Amino acid sequence: MSLEEAAAIAAGMRAAPKGLPVEQRRAGFEARAAATPLPADARFEDVAFAPGLTGLRVTVPESDADRVLLWFHGGAFVLGSSASWRRFACDVARAARVSVLLPDYRLAPEHPFPAAHEDALAACDWLDAQGVPPERRTIGGDSAGGNLALGALAARAEKAGFAAAWLVSPYLDLTNSGSSIIGRRTRDAFVDPDDGTNARWLGGADPRDPRASPLFADLSELPPTLVQVGSEEVLYDDARRLADRAPQAVFQEWVGMGHVFPLFAPALEEGRHAIAQGGAFLRLRLGLA
Amino acid sequence: MSLEEAAAIAAGMRAAPKGLPVEQRRAGFEARAAATPLPADARFEDVAFAPGLTGLRVTVPESDADRVLLWFHGGAFVLGSSASWRRFACDVARAARVSVLLPDYRLAPEHPFPAAHEDALAACDWLDAQGVPPERRTIGGDSAGGNLALGALAARAEKAGFAAAWLVSPYLDLTNSGSSIIGRRTRDAFVDPDDGTNARWLGGADPRDPRASPLFADLSELPPTLVQVGSEEVLYDDARRLADRAPQAVFQEWVGMGHVFPLFAPALEEGRHAIAQGGAFLRLRLGLA
Repeated sequence: MSLEEAAAIAAGMRAAPKGLPVEQRRAGFEARAAATPLPADARFEDVAFAPGLTGLRVTVPESDADRVLLWFHGGAFVLGSSASWRRFACDVARAARVSVLLPDYRLAPEHPFPAAHEDALAACDWLDAQGVPPERRTIGGDSAGGNLALGALAARAEKAGFAAAWLVSPYLDLTNSGSSIIGRRTRDAFVDPDDGTNARWLGGADPRDPRASPLFADLSELPPTLVQVGSEEVLYDDARRLADRAPQAVFQEWVGMGHVFPLFAPALEEGRHAIAQGGAFLRLRLGLA
Repeated sequence: MSLEEAAAIAAGMRAAPKGLPVEQRRAGFEARAAATPLPADARFEDVAFAPGLTGLRVTVPESDADRVLLWFHGGAFVLGSSASWRRFACDVARAARVSVLLPDYRLAPEHPFPAAHEDALAACDWLDAQGVPPERRTIGGDSAGGNLALGALAARAEKAGFAAAWLVSPYLDLTNSGSSIIGRRTRDAFVDPDDGTNARWLGGADPRDPRASPLFADLSELPPTLVQVGSEEVLYDDARRLADRAPQAVFQEWVGMGHVFPLFAPALEEGRHAIAQGGAFLRLRLGLA
């Protein structure tokens, strides 16, 4: 009964208080995430990616010892953490048979653009330094994290690549020029394009900078990239335009689903299905299928 | 373990004997389909769509009394029947909460183009005569049946429409000009683009005739259309190009899946997921969500 589950999640989002101070939003978000149970067989290890950039490595018994997914969490560039993405990382690690690395990149508004982008690059550099070869590493992210993942891929065109990328409801165009920004507005219970997310991260930088809006970067060298988006998203066009421009994109529009619906997998059947597809996609590219 | 399930199905397809006479192909296909169990709570009623055109109405307890899906089965224009599509129709009827109508359109080579296309139009005319209004009816098909569904939609532009369409691995370009016809050839265990399917149906007709290759028809008036295709299909580009041209298309590329994978739902997890998405799509457009 996934449409009913999606409707219940959307109703909860619509009922949530809006316009809270960022510290209160962060605390509330982390508290809700902490209430989601974690599997008993998962391991969580601290990782130091770079000075000032730490995070978690999430491993389950199914994880291949040598294959990783570097995942950038969402949260509108202002909230979210490796801690609050643990459950998702466990589900993904099992579906893709990888370890999942979750960097705690710097958040806005304290740390505006390009801080998070530079942290994303630093996490990639750490993978280089660890000697993880391209064919054994994958990259991805949801929402703002999808922006960071794609921005890092585009900026690293001259460096070692990744076997695959997986983007969930990525926010890729901070000029908000996609037609779905207006066209799907009344259907989207999650994202308010006028809430200043873009300005808060940019802190005065040009939204057309391809490091801020990687939809405008050179995407010709992207690895095979799975792009998942819900039909009920103002960010639909960000995903669709990426798929149109990236030569090796695999596009999935999920009927009746909202923003970052795979994050709701514990309560949403389609979220579990989407993670199964993401896992299959990574496994095929990592030689684990 | 859906990739493993898909691999097992593909291995079975590769091991199947090739080049059998059409009567033997039909009999073998029907015998295999008859071995798939049917749910005990489904009802199957004979329907007479037009002189010489009969079929089945498939209803489950979840079916809305007034809402229907007209489905054209696949089978390369030469095989398949309402009988062998009963299990799929039951699964779809439950997911979409509709009755499913399965016309037994005329098959090639005995009845070449445009016989099946004309039968598809006659089945639509029957819906008109029954007084089923556009907002309560949907249309779809798999493989060759997707061709017939889209061909009927395009040819009926002046007549009453449908609330939605759902196409699974549709064969839409009988000139075989999609790049995946060659590019995904070694990955496709099901469809051999050189096996003469197009010539067998066309019987000398022009493959560029939009009634034969509805990808070349005027698609501007299509209803919202869900297009599902497996990543491992030579027909991938038929689906992708339709989604590029149809203004209200919803596109889903399913990772690691082969031709008409939702038909394998009883043995394939992703097939069940895809039917759930198709059902949700129809329900949203039929006001059943």
